[in-house]
Amino acid sequence: MDYSQEALNQHKKYRWKLTTLPKVPLETKDDLATYYTPWVAAPCLEIAQNKDLAYDYTWKNNSVAIVSDGSAVLWLGNIGPEAWLPVMEWKAILFKKYGNIDAIPIVLNTQDPDEIIKVVEAIAPTFGWINLEDIAAPNCFYIEEELKKRLNIPVFHDDQHGTAIVVLAWLINALKLKNADFSSQKIVISGAWAAAIAIWKLLKKAWAENIIFLDSKWVIHGWRTDLNKYKQEISPWNIEQISWTLDDAIKWADIFIWVSKPGLLHKEHIQSMNPNPIIFALANPTPEIMPDEAREAGAFIVATWRSDFPNQVNNVLAFPGIFRGALDARIPQISDEHKIAAAKALANFVKNPDREHIIPSAFDQWIANTVAEAVKNIKE
Amino acid sequence: MDYSQEALNQHKKYRWKLTTLPKVPLETKDDLATYYTPWVAAPCLEIAQNKDLAYDYTWKNNSVAIVSDGSAVLWLGNIGPEAWLPVMEWKAILFKKYGNIDAIPIVLNTQDPDEIIKVVEAIAPTFGWINLEDIAAPNCFYIEEELKKRLNIPVFHDDQHGTAIVVLAWLINALKLKNADFSSQKIVISGAWAAAIAIWKLLKKAWAENIIFLDSKWVIHGWRTDLNKYKQEISPWNIEQISWTLDDAIKWADIFIWVSKPGLLHKEHIQSMNPNPIIFALANPTPEIMPDEAREAGAFIVATWRSDFPNQVNNVLAFPGIFRGALDARIPQISDEHKIAAAKALANFVKNPDREHIIPSAFDQWIANTVAEAVKNIKE
Repeated sequence: MDYSQEALNQHKKYRWKLTTLPKVPLETKDDLATYYTPWVAAPCLEIAQNKDLAYDYTWKNNSVAIVSDGSAVLWLGNIGPEAWLPVMEWKAILFKKYGNIDAIPIVLNTQDPDEIIKVVEAIAPTFGWINLEDIAAPNCFYIEEELKKRLNIPVFHDDQHGTAIVVLAWLINALKLKNADFSSQKIVISGAWAAAIAIWKLLKKAWAENIIFLDSKWVIHGWRTDLNKYKQEISPWNIEQISWTLDDAIKWADIFIWVSKPGLLHKEHIQSMNPNPIIFALANPTPEIMPDEAREAGAFIVATWRSDFPNQVNNVLAFPGIFRGALDARIPQISDEHKIAAAKALANFVKNPDREHIIPSAFDQWIANTVAEAVKNIKE
Repeated sequence: MDYSQEALNQHKKYRWKLTTLPKVPLETKDDLATYYTPWVAAPCLEIAQNKDLAYDYTWKNNSVAIVSDGSAVLWLGNIGPEAWLPVMEWKAILFKKYGNIDAIPIVLNTQDPDEIIKVVEAIAPTFGWINLEDIAAPNCFYIEEELKKRLNIPVFHDDQHGTAIVVLAWLINALKLKNADFSSQKIVISGAWAAAIAIWKLLKKAWAENIIFLDSKWVIHGWRTDLNKYKQEISPWNIEQISWTLDDAIKWADIFIWVSKPGLLHKEHIQSMNPNPIIFALANPTPEIMPDEAREAGAFIVATWRSDFPNQVNNVLAFPGIFRGALDARIPQISDEHKIAAAKALANFVKNPDREHIIPSAFDQWIANTVAEAVKNIKE
């Protein structure tokens, strides 16, 4: 089957994948009067006196804007806002299907971070959450930070934090199988994507102790003068101020997490690692190294972003439950504690992990509920 | 029954009135692969090469952003963006129920017209239409004009054009009953609202010949130096350069259309008009004069905005069909010809109008289809 053609046919058949639906009846003049003029004025005036009541009377308690400037859409590059709308519609469907959340795609025709901030600030009263999506680093960090300061609703960048949560969940179970703990493991993270830095930060916040970050040049350390603010932040954590290139760094590692480009990892790299290495090859759609090849070279477990290989790192395991729990509990922002709780819940969801079944499948029932409960139970 | 309390209860029961729904299946790994990564790349890349294909592959062919800065929400004044969200959710429901259109409320926390234009420009690629809603005059004119220049999708301000269409439809049938034609009728329009100027323009474009506009001071004429750009535009049409106040103007009139404030019209005004006067008392929620009182004073027919009196001027008669027809036919902007065609279709929908049944009820079946067909049949 020509999958690509089939995808075109299916998209054309449905034309749009997401639709809207009224929840209230609209059959009589009384319905009109109750939900619209004149009596809609009653909830309007209540909210005018206390903005918080918007959560009782409107979709603000269940709505998410999925905002993207399309600067990092899959592996497709900069294809223009209309062209990434199919991806954003899909994201909205996942929000609904797994989290019962009403998410609306908002694709922007600007990639200027300050303009994006202004636009999101302007539309924010409409929604209960802002989910940033497919915005490239380092702009995504600045936009997220700034919006968190300016808005009174939560802001989340799923490419960063959703991915980091799933990677952490994955590692919790992988280390169970390897019979090792985090503090014993030397971890190298590499990649230009937003997710790479977010993974670094969350692992550091969880239990990782020996962890270095490699950008497209070499390991990040305090002597480098070419680091942006976000890379500078993580440089002090390279305690021994290691200044290796990829080839040296990988020899040192037990765990290698790569969010980069296809084909950059070779069998020799994996053979040079410590025994039973764990590999994340998260380039999309073609991993840095194919799982079979990595296993042949001695990898203990391999993760990719692909649904046609085992151990898929799939954000859908995390974000519907996180948003569901946070919306239900009116959590003002997702903290590292929420993320770690979500990762633990995901890991524990798999009763008997093995090397082919490290984390749940996207189709397992109740994952979102389990994650939501874990998030709700964190006391601020 | 305490309707106000009942409205609160109902809004609280449903919490949000509008929800989202996936149209495509999401049950298997194949569904994931077809609608999301990797094969969603196929429609993305098609659209990247030809933006127009977004109408084949995404919700762009059926989605409308209802954008409001809340500067003219019902009669409630400036109550803040969260507080007018219930009204915008309701509007979205009407779009869906009557036009099968996916409309998304977007309430803004800015009332600066240039900022609004920038925000709408930024989010426009997401949608097939921009519907401006509840934006006060004169900003609404500037915003609409400017967006029409800048965007490649239609822009419509329903408070203006929807209302004008329904008023025109109404007048077509009222004059049938009165056995008069437009050119014989002297028309006075008054009001500060956006709708008043839009009604003036559309009646002028249709068949009205003797028509003057009265603002809160006196009749608009060429000698006045206090007119904004939009009022200046209509001043040359006061051919005889009449400079009356309300009391003089109304004596001259056969038709008086008022979009203003409760209680400003008295029995004496109506008694001073030409025989069989037609009155639009469109203040919301309390008309300028109550229909019974107007009828007692000799009014031939009275229109209000209220569903509890006959002859309601209700935009829902127009906009769902207009948008449905325009979306189906990919009409680039709604012209005066489209508006007049829609008004004629609405008027003709009532087979035997009488003084209590001038235009269809919002609950009549097939109105939107009838209007949509009329709009589609206009050749550009």
